[in-house]
Amino acid sequence: MASNQEEVKLFGIVGSPFVTRVDIALNLKGVQYKYEEEKLGEFSDALIKYNPVYKKVPVLVHNDKPISESLVILEYIDEIWKQNPILPSDPYKRALARFWSKFIDDKCLNAARKVAFSLDEKEREEGFKELEVAFQFLEDELKDKFFGGEDIGLVDITGVFIAFWVPIMQEVIGLKLLTIEKFPKLYKWSQDFNNHQIVKETLPNRETQLAYFKARYESLFASK
Amino acid sequence: MASNQEEVKLFGIVGSPFVTRVDIALNLKGVQYKYEEEKLGEFSDALIKYNPVYKKVPVLVHNDKPISESLVILEYIDEIWKQNPILPSDPYKRALARFWSKFIDDKCLNAARKVAFSLDEKEREEGFKELEVAFQFLEDELKDKFFGGEDIGLVDITGVFIAFWVPIMQEVIGLKLLTIEKFPKLYKWSQDFNNHQIVKETLPNRETQLAYFKARYESLFASK
Repeated sequence: MASNQEEVKLFGIVGSPFVTRVDIALNLKGVQYKYEEEKLGEFSDALIKYNPVYKKVPVLVHNDKPISESLVILEYIDEIWKQNPILPSDPYKRALARFWSKFIDDKCLNAARKVAFSLDEKEREEGFKELEVAFQFLEDELKDKFFGGEDIGLVDITGVFIAFWVPIMQEVIGLKLLTIEKFPKLYKWSQDFNNHQIVKETLPNRETQLAYFKARYESLFASK
Repeated sequence: MASNQEEVKLFGIVGSPFVTRVDIALNLKGVQYKYEEEKLGEFSDALIKYNPVYKKVPVLVHNDKPISESLVILEYIDEIWKQNPILPSDPYKRALARFWSKFIDDKCLNAARKVAFSLDEKEREEGFKELEVAFQFLEDELKDKFFGGEDIGLVDITGVFIAFWVPIMQEVIGLKLLTIEKFPKLYKWSQDFNNHQIVKETLPNRETQLAYFKARYESLFASK
């Protein structure tokens, strides 16, 4: 448990799915932390000092010790604050949780980037197909209410961009991807996840994110 | 500790740095395992069944439960067999070990692939520069004999392709990259790592790897 002397800071950018992962984990654990908002392209000296390798958010600073990379941060949080575990205790289930979190980063994020931000029509279609394949794997993997069982865990938190940002993306672009018809279990999961009390209180404002994504998407094609 | 009923199988391909990571970890722990050699492009039905997502090696099967992705496997091995720990016990040091292992996968592997296998001269140069930057980070990070301290740990094992395969690559291509002049600490580390008793007994035959890499490199340019 956190002691009184403890200082926890999170360097982030509102609207970053990677930062939101860390926000959710800290809030699930009930950890008090100071949030430091960074600006894309104008990172503070502190951020660069704390993450000289990648120079990006999120960075968690716990008692002056910086940690980067969202999945690494999530494991650290789970090791330091034991309440409301994010990872299962069974080693095999832990391995599976790590595997599927990595899968989301490896297979879903790049594909979604192609769909959302590529100017090449063929590449966009390719990304869409990759996402369909990836979502089918996740659909098949989902056995309970959440990937973590009855409570949200590492895979759910990692998947926040699927639950929250993919629906925004498909609304702006006009895609049918994460729908109740195509992926009934994953769709229901996304609803349950977004409506989870802690998650709901942590997610950025949907309207703002929608407006941001719409503006970014339109400017992409305006500059084509 | 392993019980008598325990069955540990590793599906691999000799000469894969990813498989070699798992071999080293199992040998460090003194775990007896059955090695199943796969063929590139002709994976067995068992391999496809065990790793339907990526269809690649390594796959560790422990009492019929399959685990894929080398870094996920290494963490699993460390959780199941406690002797000769691969990860530090301190959470912050664990986070750093995870960070640098991920760094090797993210920043060194793709760059090395460009250097070794790209037909585009510019891309090869770009990969070379990326590797120099990455190696400088590792050089600065190396404080002790090994990344793990006096004993080898997660980052060392993940880095086997730097210690063992990069020197082979630079010999074949005629590069000066991991040299005593450029990266004295990292160079010494690579020697110490390759000469570590368990590692030395685990690494594939250097001459065979050299011949294989040479043939592959030459055929790449023959087909240009």
